[in-house]
Amino acid sequence: MTKKHLFIDNLQYSNWSPKIFDEMKEGNLTAVHVTISYHENFRQTIENIITWNKFIELYSDRIMLGRSAEDVRIAYDTNKTAIIFGFQNCSPIEENIGLIEVLHQLGVRFMQLSYNNQSLLATGCYEINDPGITRFGKQAIKEMNRIGMVIDISHTSENSSFEAIKLSKRPIVISHANPDWWHPSKRNKSDSLIKEVTSSGGMIGFSIYPHHLKDGSNCTLESFSAMIAKSADRYGVDNLGIGSDICQNQPDNVVEWMRNGTWSKEIDYGEGSKNNSEFPNQPEWYRKTSDFPNILEGLKNVGFNNEECSKIMGLNWFKFYEGNFCGS
Amino acid sequence: MTKKHLFIDNLQYSNWSPKIFDEMKEGNLTAVHVTISYHENFRQTIENIITWNKFIELYSDRIMLGRSAEDVRIAYDTNKTAIIFGFQNCSPIEENIGLIEVLHQLGVRFMQLSYNNQSLLATGCYEINDPGITRFGKQAIKEMNRIGMVIDISHTSENSSFEAIKLSKRPIVISHANPDWWHPSKRNKSDSLIKEVTSSGGMIGFSIYPHHLKDGSNCTLESFSAMIAKSADRYGVDNLGIGSDICQNQPDNVVEWMRNGTWSKEIDYGEGSKNNSEFPNQPEWYRKTSDFPNILEGLKNVGFNNEECSKIMGLNWFKFYEGNFCGS
Repeated sequence: MTKKHLFIDNLQYSNWSPKIFDEMKEGNLTAVHVTISYHENFRQTIENIITWNKFIELYSDRIMLGRSAEDVRIAYDTNKTAIIFGFQNCSPIEENIGLIEVLHQLGVRFMQLSYNNQSLLATGCYEINDPGITRFGKQAIKEMNRIGMVIDISHTSENSSFEAIKLSKRPIVISHANPDWWHPSKRNKSDSLIKEVTSSGGMIGFSIYPHHLKDGSNCTLESFSAMIAKSADRYGVDNLGIGSDICQNQPDNVVEWMRNGTWSKEIDYGEGSKNNSEFPNQPEWYRKTSDFPNILEGLKNVGFNNEECSKIMGLNWFKFYEGNFCGS
Repeated sequence: MTKKHLFIDNLQYSNWSPKIFDEMKEGNLTAVHVTISYHENFRQTIENIITWNKFIELYSDRIMLGRSAEDVRIAYDTNKTAIIFGFQNCSPIEENIGLIEVLHQLGVRFMQLSYNNQSLLATGCYEINDPGITRFGKQAIKEMNRIGMVIDISHTSENSSFEAIKLSKRPIVISHANPDWWHPSKRNKSDSLIKEVTSSGGMIGFSIYPHHLKDGSNCTLESFSAMIAKSADRYGVDNLGIGSDICQNQPDNVVEWMRNGTWSKEIDYGEGSKNNSEFPNQPEWYRKTSDFPNILEGLKNVGFNNEECSKIMGLNWFKFYEGNFCGS
């Protein structure tokens, strides 16, 4: 694996198309963790999987299903992008613990315990109170551990996140968020939580979604890279990666749906506001997935050496996949 | 309505059959609120409704659908039992607020906010922490108020219940439980909560499920009736009724399913225990729905006059239906 960097973007939710798969290749991405469901129930998630299976069949020259680190290695060797399935909420398992194994069998490797709201498993970061992991949640964490489905707490509340780490026998991840000491927001994470995640073998994927960035859409690559450098000082370099959260070509009704699902008759603006409700503009250095290599330049410019760059750009995620995508 | 008492049992979950519909008639029951779903999702609930629609078609000499107080009046005049649909959990609305109206259109008039566990709307009485009503829960309460679907907190936790009362513009009910000053248990309710429910126009239906009874299956009719008399002293007589929670002819795997749904791979024994996991035996004075008139005797024997007996045996529920089964 010395011939080129192994790049991994551990969170994207784009309006997928063959053009984007081309751009992944152009951006040298060996693996992308794609969100396939938010609020979809099991049956709707199966439709999403069918759609993805079709993509993978039709564009097999560019993408392949990523079920293991070994698959990512094959993607690397064959110049493809391994597509790793994940959920940003637990809606797909409905109220049935048996669906965790079924969905893992279908390729799903990441599941967030909650998305902004209280879920059946854990509290979301937009709720007022934060009671922690529910009775069902405790069972689900045990099952995810057993099966090899990774626990993701990106949109989960603080207490619930700490409790999840404590309950989980495997490391857990923040697939896409930034430290709140850099940019305070409900979705960014506290220093102590990031410490707990990374020091227990988990990962944080730094997000390039403008609401998570200092200066929003105007955030510079220098500022973003300096934040990563500071993070490396605080948390070490081995548990950091990228989870860009890019939502390429998505119409604005998609962000409205992400925030509101079907649970509200009033509009919730989430990280936006009434006068700023649409998808924010990406910073100019990461407008599309083919811009991914720009991040490498940013990292070099703030002083990371070649080995450190490799780790942050993908190797750390790869190693995490090696240890956590299979049953125990 | 002077010719006979109007009897209402505001909670049953039996293994329904024409024989039980005969027994309802024998017991002079004018209305029964039947649980049609616990953990079932929307689609599964539709199957339960189809089953009930078939019952109502086939046994139209004995039962009819109860959608309003007016329907209950018709049942009274025609010697039938009005069947009122309800849920003991919010699983049937899944994550979709629009399903509240759809299910009301199909006849559903009661919905518990949670069943023992944390739901998407509220906490259940078996959770360790009790954060209250969720963001979705606030929206759902508003919609239930608008549509005329009654909020039931029988299996909901204490804080969540108080918050539900505060948020709801309509009175809410405890369809089936007893005061914990009579028999302490997680499922029975505190004095202050019953006060709050009844003083705001809501109802409590006293339960004859043995785990809610002092002395369990050996509870006497005298003890049960004396508890109701003491409740009348504390809360007045106008907001008390019966919600027997009888589960006639149910096999023991049903109580296991009620407690565990599909959320756990370990067995939760709920109000029972490992060595006492099955359905408990009913007290001898209420073994089947045709025994309902026995309660009237019990009430008379502890000193309730005829008018008070009428209220508790059904008229209070009837009046509650008049005010709360339609949109506002």
